Amino acid sequence: MRTYRDCLPCFLDQALRAGRMATEDEAKIKRLLDEVGAMLRDIPLESTPPETGRLIYKKVREITGQLDPYKHIKSESTEKALTLYPSLKKKVEKSNDRLLTAVRIAIAGNVIDFGVNRDFDIEEEIDETLKKDFAVCDYGKFKKYLDKAKEVLYIGDNAGESVFDKILIEEMKKPVTYVVRGVPIINDATYEDAVQAGIDKVATIVSSWTDAPGTLLKTCSAEFKELYNISKFTISKGQGNYEALSNEKRPIFFLLKAKCHVIAGDLGVNEGDIILKGINV
Amino acid sequence: MRTYRDCLPCFLDQALRAGRMATEDEAKIKRLLDEVGAMLRDIPLESTPPETGRLIYKKVREITGQLDPYKHIKSESTEKALTLYPSLKKKVEKSNDRLLTAVRIAIAGNVIDFGVNRDFDIEEEIDETLKKDFAVCDYGKFKKYLDKAKEVLYIGDNAGESVFDKILIEEMKKPVTYVVRGVPIINDATYEDAVQAGIDKVATIVSSWTDAPGTLLKTCSAEFKELYNISKFTISKGQGNYEALSNEKRPIFFLLKAKCHVIAGDLGVNEGDIILKGINV
Repeated sequence: MRTYRDCLPCFLDQALRAGRMATEDEAKIKRLLDEVGAMLRDIPLESTPPETGRLIYKKVREITGQLDPYKHIKSESTEKALTLYPSLKKKVEKSNDRLLTAVRIAIAGNVIDFGVNRDFDIEEEIDETLKKDFAVCDYGKFKKYLDKAKEVLYIGDNAGESVFDKILIEEMKKPVTYVVRGVPIINDATYEDAVQAGIDKVATIVSSWTDAPGTLLKTCSAEFKELYNISKFTISKGQGNYEALSNEKRPIFFLLKAKCHVIAGDLGVNEGDIILKGINV
Repeated sequence: MRTYRDCLPCFLDQALRAGRMATEDEAKIKRLLDEVGAMLRDIPLESTPPETGRLIYKKVREITGQLDPYKHIKSESTEKALTLYPSLKKKVEKSNDRLLTAVRIAIAGNVIDFGVNRDFDIEEEIDETLKKDFAVCDYGKFKKYLDKAKEVLYIGDNAGESVFDKILIEEMKKPVTYVVRGVPIINDATYEDAVQAGIDKVATIVSSWTDAPGTLLKTCSAEFKELYNISKFTISKGQGNYEALSNEKRPIFFLLKAKCHVIAGDLGVNEGDIILKGINV
């Protein structure tokens, strides 16, 4: 997805939130906003938003000296999600279509996103997402691809959300490689977050080694790119990965909630809609 | 009110909205955002937000060549408000406290604000504002000051809102000088907007000659400053005027709805709260 003009004020907003998470030093936060503001003129609208996100969070690290401002909040999110795990499993067990319920749960987990919004009620969100109609639903194709797949490449998004991903991984009953970010970026899941979520029990965890808040292929390791290029069934979670991969030529299924009006517009849906969209399938 | 860090992303957002109102030329909008972004480092947090607003809308004019992008929408707002006028008068007539109802109506009119938000339902807003509790209510002092006043200096805010101000002016039963902006800035009321609203029938309209989206005294004419400095009873409508005048030493009654969390925080109230606050009284 390209960068829209509406992304520009949002970049500054993200810098402000990340800056506040990293430091209480008001002068540093002001400097951060000044520098991100001055960066705007160098952002080509043809680039994807995670390319800019990457530069913003690099600035946050440089100016505040904090490498992982969301560390504590990520761990808390995972803990909270783990307490919900038994009830989520029950929802799957009681449902008519276990796989679809697990897909919905995986999307509901995507609301755990401090990059977009800090205010959410996860339990309310799950209940809403379990009932809500999909705005795009390529579930038929999803099942077909899953049936044929020897293995699944599952690109994770936020910490905490990984617990919800585990539910879907368990229902897919195929070998899964779960992809995490290489370095801490916002609240995106890294290796240790995925392990805390118990993903290591159900999948092989690999890092894409990107330092962007989305799987920006040009910043990923050669090993990851090879995995990606041979994958016949890739699942991509969340907005950042959608932004980075939506113009790719490989078959990918995007599972996300459209949490901002720009992404909703790009997808041709309404803000708040849930999406299971396959491309090149 | 000083500039808070949260104002900085909002400045960019305002530039985007005003740019879109002024032009469809995407390259110009990008240039506008780039230049406003680069301006951020020169904004002292000690300055008031309208000081920056003034520079932003100056950039909008320079880059798009549009001197009054909100002209059409202002006129439409006033027309719409005028159709509501008879029912607003009835609400006053049926109420137990005509003056207080007129104050509430004047505050409800403050929701007509394209600088902050384009989405509102004015009729719903009026009904809500007529019932809502005030978060700050210096109505007792307001009445006392009004009783003693020989004349009222009434600083208007947005076009359309002026029709609601007319209701309050009619209830105050004192000579009123109604203050408008000197040049078009966002949807703020200028001389012709006030006349369209019928203010000329109930008050003397004067311009403060500011080109800021708030009564920034250092940008006002000497004549206006003289009026302001001798006024014993000044009413200031809306956020922009609050931002510009909240640290003044003159007696002022602020009538507004706190439409953003920064102003709400500055006032010690919640977003969405309505306020009748007297300072130096």
